[in-house]
Amino acid sequence: MDITLIGAGNLAVNLGKALLKAGHNIVQVYSRTEESAATLARILDAEPVNRISDVDDTASVYIIAVKDSALASLLPSLCMNRGDKTFLHTAGSISIDVFDGMARNYGVFYPMQTFSKEREVDFSVIPCFIEGSNDAVLTAAKELAHTVSDHVYDLSSDGRRVLHLAAVFASNFVNHCFSISSELLSGCGIPFDVMYPLIDEVVAKARLMRPVEAQTGPAVRYDVNVISRQAEMLSSEPLLRNIYEDMSRSIHEMSERQRKDAMQ
Amino acid sequence: MDITLIGAGNLAVNLGKALLKAGHNIVQVYSRTEESAATLARILDAEPVNRISDVDDTASVYIIAVKDSALASLLPSLCMNRGDKTFLHTAGSISIDVFDGMARNYGVFYPMQTFSKEREVDFSVIPCFIEGSNDAVLTAAKELAHTVSDHVYDLSSDGRRVLHLAAVFASNFVNHCFSISSELLSGCGIPFDVMYPLIDEVVAKARLMRPVEAQTGPAVRYDVNVISRQAEMLSSEPLLRNIYEDMSRSIHEMSERQRKDAMQ
Repeated sequence: MDITLIGAGNLAVNLGKALLKAGHNIVQVYSRTEESAATLARILDAEPVNRISDVDDTASVYIIAVKDSALASLLPSLCMNRGDKTFLHTAGSISIDVFDGMARNYGVFYPMQTFSKEREVDFSVIPCFIEGSNDAVLTAAKELAHTVSDHVYDLSSDGRRVLHLAAVFASNFVNHCFSISSELLSGCGIPFDVMYPLIDEVVAKARLMRPVEAQTGPAVRYDVNVISRQAEMLSSEPLLRNIYEDMSRSIHEMSERQRKDAMQ
Repeated sequence: MDITLIGAGNLAVNLGKALLKAGHNIVQVYSRTEESAATLARILDAEPVNRISDVDDTASVYIIAVKDSALASLLPSLCMNRGDKTFLHTAGSISIDVFDGMARNYGVFYPMQTFSKEREVDFSVIPCFIEGSNDAVLTAAKELAHTVSDHVYDLSSDGRRVLHLAAVFASNFVNHCFSISSELLSGCGIPFDVMYPLIDEVVAKARLMRPVEAQTGPAVRYDVNVISRQAEMLSSEPLLRNIYEDMSRSIHEMSERQRKDAMQ
C-alpha cells in the first residue's frame, strides 16, 4: 500500500517503521519541523515535506499522527480535493467526527501504546482499535492494521473515549505513582530499584486475577492509623496528600463494593 | 537457627517456607485461628499453637508477622521473661520502638513485597530492610535475612516509614489505577487484557529512566481540552473525578519542576 505519514513524532516513527517492515511503501513524511521530517523520511525511504501544500496525491492512504491539538487545523488543507483518498487519524481521544465534511473515506487507527523515540516497540503485540466512515474503509483499515499488529479490534468513537481514559489510569497515572514513589525514596537516599520486585509482583497479579481482588495494603483494610500517619507525612505537599487520601478512600470503597457483589 | 513464627498469614506463609528452605528449624507457629496455625505448621514441620501462653522457650528468634493492629497487644505476653531471646517484627509501617520496655534484643525484618496465599514468590529477590536494638541483633538479623534474600539493607524506622509510604504508591495505588481502568473498560465490554502491552511498556520504561522523565499523555502536556473532557466523563463518580484532576495537576507540576531542574 502507498502510504503518506502526516507527523514525525514518537507514534509516527514507530508506526512508520512497522509499516515499512510489513512491506508498505511510505511515499511522503510530513512534519512542520524540517529535521524531524528529514530524519524519519530517511529511515522510511520517503520524501520529507514541511508544508501541507507539498503533500502530493501519490499515496492512497494518509495516516495522521500529529499532536491532538494540531489535528483539526491540518485537515481542511490535507483532505481538500482528495475525495478518492482514505484518511486515518491515530488519536485515542479524538472522535471520528473530526473528519465530518472534510472527506468521504476516513477512519481511526489507534495503536494503544506509549511511544518514545528511545525505545523501539514490538508493534505486533500492540492492540489497534479501528473505526471507519463506511464498511469499505473499515475493512481496508483493519486489513492494514493486521499487517502490523496481531491484535486488531473494531471500536466506536464512544468506546475509544472510554478506552483512552482507562489507558490514562493504567499508564500515565501508574507512571505518576512511580514518580511520586521515586521522589519519596530519593528524599532518604534509597534508589527506586528496590521497588522493582514489588512492582513486578503487582503487575503479575493483575494478569492472574481482577485487580480489585488483588488489592492489599493499609487502604483496603482501611487501617485508619496507618492511613492518617501516612497522610500526615505528606502534609507539606497538599496535592499529594489529597491524592493519598482520595486513593485510599477509593480503594476501600471499591473493595467493599466488590465484596458485597461477591456475596450476592 | 531455631525460629518461632508468630502469625500464619500471607507473609508468615511465604517467609516460613523460605526459612525452612534455607535450612532453619521452625519450632512453633502461632495463630489465633486454629486452622491457619495447623495448616502452616504442617507445611513447616512445626508445632501449631493458638494461645500466646503456649508459645514456648525453645526458639532463639521469634519472628512476628501479624496484622499491624495486633502487634502491640501481643508483645507484653510474648516477650515477658524472655530476656535472652531475639524478637523481630516484619511490619513496614511500625517503628522499632514498639518493643520499648518489652525486650532487650529486638529489631525489624521487613521484606518489602505484596504476599498472597495463591502465589508463591521467589524470596531471594525481595529486598529486606533490617533494624536492630543493638549491633549484635542487627548483625544476627542481617545474617538471617541473607539466608533467604540476596537484597538486605540497613534501614532506620524513620527511613522505613518513608519506604512504606513509597511502596503504597508504587504498589497499592498502582494496583488501584488498574482496578479503575478495568472497571471503566468493563463498562463498555472491553477486557482488561488489552492494557497489558501498555502496562508492560510503562514498567519497562520505569527501569530505564526516571519515571518523571518517562511520563506521556494529556496531563504532562497539560492538554486542557482532553483533561476537562475526561474529567467530565467521571462526573457521576466525584471521588474518581477528584483523583483524575489531582493526578493530572500533579503530573504537570512534577514534570514542570523536573524541566526547570534540568535547565539549571
